[in-house]
Amino acid sequence: MKPILSLVLIAAVAAYGPAHAQFAKAEDAVKYRKSALFVMQQNFGRVAGMAGGKIPFDAKVAADSAAVAEYVSRLPWTAFGEGTDKGDTRAKPEIWKERAKFDEYAEKMQAEMVKLSAAAKTGNLDSIKAAVNATGGSCKTCHDAFRKE
Amino acid sequence: MKPILSLVLIAAVAAYGPAHAQFAKAEDAVKYRKSALFVMQQNFGRVAGMAGGKIPFDAKVAADSAAVAEYVSRLPWTAFGEGTDKGDTRAKPEIWKERAKFDEYAEKMQAEMVKLSAAAKTGNLDSIKAAVNATGGSCKTCHDAFRKE
Repeated sequence: MKPILSLVLIAAVAAYGPAHAQFAKAEDAVKYRKSALFVMQQNFGRVAGMAGGKIPFDAKVAADSAAVAEYVSRLPWTAFGEGTDKGDTRAKPEIWKERAKFDEYAEKMQAEMVKLSAAAKTGNLDSIKAAVNATGGSCKTCHDAFRKE
Repeated sequence: MKPILSLVLIAAVAAYGPAHAQFAKAEDAVKYRKSALFVMQQNFGRVAGMAGGKIPFDAKVAADSAAVAEYVSRLPWTAFGEGTDKGDTRAKPEIWKERAKFDEYAEKMQAEMVKLSAAAKTGNLDSIKAAVNATGGSCKTCHDAFRKE
């Protein structure tokens, strides 16, 4: 991706989502981000399953699922506030030590989801496969750096 | 609400969401619907907290949160398929015995979320309060009938 396009996508993504979202308890924040990531993963996983030939390709289901994954990909990030590094979470402390890097990875993933959703709307399976690979790579990059095994 | 308007809203709502969504395992479906409902509840709860004076009113946060709650309110229903009545769930067996009633309650709630989101966009706190009450009532109606204590 060209740097300018990347910046435009990131700006578009950053404009979404409740930036000042508040949670009553740290446990709620942890549960919120895990819930949003699970909903996203299930929808992304369905599209990835079609791209990988494990699920029969259905263009409408792929487009709908990618659209949900794209939308929900904006939601988890407000729930990574200070003090939410404890409890039932695999989040590494590095998230709060290297916040700029974490935010960059999160924004990159959201930008890839935007492209995946656009690809899925075309119904072209080759485009979907390429976008699934790019999106999955952005998930893995962040998990490798910031998620415990 | 007039019957005609109600039907229009239900049709609009039903057009969204991956109608043929599939889950690899029943446990995934259970976790998916609980996750979606939690994300929805956290966003709705924030708006309800503002309506009830427990959280300082912030029109932008209210509008953003209501929009997320509206979107996510469409997601849980594909995950109430046959065979997903077991495991870590408070779903009553009546969901699968009285499906038309369950679907009606689910659609009613989604229609109320549409109205809540529209009210929140206006920034008028009195409109938001009225919509929060109506939406909360639609949650309770369904929980009373179809959710275990």
